[in-house]
Amino acid sequence: MLPEDQRDRLKTDHIEVVLVSPRNPLNIGAAARAMANFGFARLTVVAPYEPHWREAKSAVGAEKLLENARLSPSLAASVAASTLVVGTGTVERRKPEQTVVALPDLAPLIREELERGGRLSLVFGPEKHGLTRDDLALCHLLVEIPTDPEQPSMNLGQAVAVCLYELSSRLSSRTQAPAHLSSAAPTAAARPVSAHLDMLAEVIQQTMVASRYSPSTMAAANAQDLRLLLRRLALNDGDARRILGLFRRILWRLRHEGSVNRNHEK
Amino acid sequence: MLPEDQRDRLKTDHIEVVLVSPRNPLNIGAAARAMANFGFARLTVVAPYEPHWREAKSAVGAEKLLENARLSPSLAASVAASTLVVGTGTVERRKPEQTVVALPDLAPLIREELERGGRLSLVFGPEKHGLTRDDLALCHLLVEIPTDPEQPSMNLGQAVAVCLYELSSRLSSRTQAPAHLSSAAPTAAARPVSAHLDMLAEVIQQTMVASRYSPSTMAAANAQDLRLLLRRLALNDGDARRILGLFRRILWRLRHEGSVNRNHEK
Repeated sequence: MLPEDQRDRLKTDHIEVVLVSPRNPLNIGAAARAMANFGFARLTVVAPYEPHWREAKSAVGAEKLLENARLSPSLAASVAASTLVVGTGTVERRKPEQTVVALPDLAPLIREELERGGRLSLVFGPEKHGLTRDDLALCHLLVEIPTDPEQPSMNLGQAVAVCLYELSSRLSSRTQAPAHLSSAAPTAAARPVSAHLDMLAEVIQQTMVASRYSPSTMAAANAQDLRLLLRRLALNDGDARRILGLFRRILWRLRHEGSVNRNHEK
Repeated sequence: MLPEDQRDRLKTDHIEVVLVSPRNPLNIGAAARAMANFGFARLTVVAPYEPHWREAKSAVGAEKLLENARLSPSLAASVAASTLVVGTGTVERRKPEQTVVALPDLAPLIREELERGGRLSLVFGPEKHGLTRDDLALCHLLVEIPTDPEQPSMNLGQAVAVCLYELSSRLSSRTQAPAHLSSAAPTAAARPVSAHLDMLAEVIQQTMVASRYSPSTMAAANAQDLRLLLRRLALNDGDARRILGLFRRILWRLRHEGSVNRNHEK
């Protein structure tokens, strides 16, 4: 069994992104950039409109990927070695013969295919009208990005980004959180011990009285509220120390100023 | 079917997309287009670089959305009414104090917040460097799009599309928040709005100076620390009000006693 990382890499190596007759090189570059972002390397461009598409400035960080992209005269030729050809787009005005899968449901199907040694092509049509009937006839499956019916038409680069995000984040899952996340729980820092919290509650409570925020008759009730509050806030140890320092200072100042006044009143 | 749609619409009405200092109007337009694709309508643009951003040609099908977008001078002002501010970006070179959530785990947290009547701001930084430290200090939570470590930097329009796809396709589904993250939203009670937290930070900061806990030269650093701390603590609205009341009282008393003393010293 390969380590998790290598299994993922193996998987994306068996997924080809295919752009059919893209008109705007900026969109080709944007698609390449999204591929690099999500760990996909294999791009095929079918009959592009603009001959100098490989120089697209939008391919930030994906210049090599664009250089290595395959150029193909036809969709049929470009998907010849694939075992599963997935077409993208909205299918509202069409009645496709193939199964239509919503993008959030796609990953398990593709995982199955890859696990039995298959090769996938993910096919995107031209900007204006999407895949033609002839293109669709080469697809085993259609995938639809769930968009607002009032504004279903996506930008090509954004559609590629969304599809690859979905696949990269859900192909390997057994949804494992990235390693850095396990330490990202809000209390990665040490928690204060309970006694420290009680000391803090005590000092705040004295400050409440000294500042005449609350009368000393409320001390017991306040102490309990404060204990509860301080625990609910999930302070870390450093927070607790700093807050304690602040309240000690306030308390000292209130009492110091107070004593000066009392002396004055005598 | 229809009730589901209406619930979703209600939810996205409480989600604001905030673009901070975007440089390229094409990216603003692309963000607006993705918003329209996924059923989001509320856009705020903070201090854009180019004054004619509302005419961005890339906002295909989202011209009205751009027209209606709010223009804001600062991030603080634009998130003032939000109960949950979520910053986006890669955090590799930083060690953020906030919880970092991977995008695929975000929807359940946001659903919880919306279900208790909260309002969300989803914040995107400028193209080159992302959100600054000051921006991040206004965020309760950071979300990271899981990208390839070799090429983590996404195009702004594509990042917006990916985030909104994730939210729109998974906000309504009944997946549970991972257990270790539920403490990012620990209280059933309503959260304070961002402006209220900033007011609290301001009063505490003044108290620090008035009590001579910290010199006034530290005001800016303290203000940032306090903003972060207050957001990390996940105070509920009642907590925030009570703490504000206490510090106002302390501050009044410190200043009042102080003035008595100064009179005395004359």
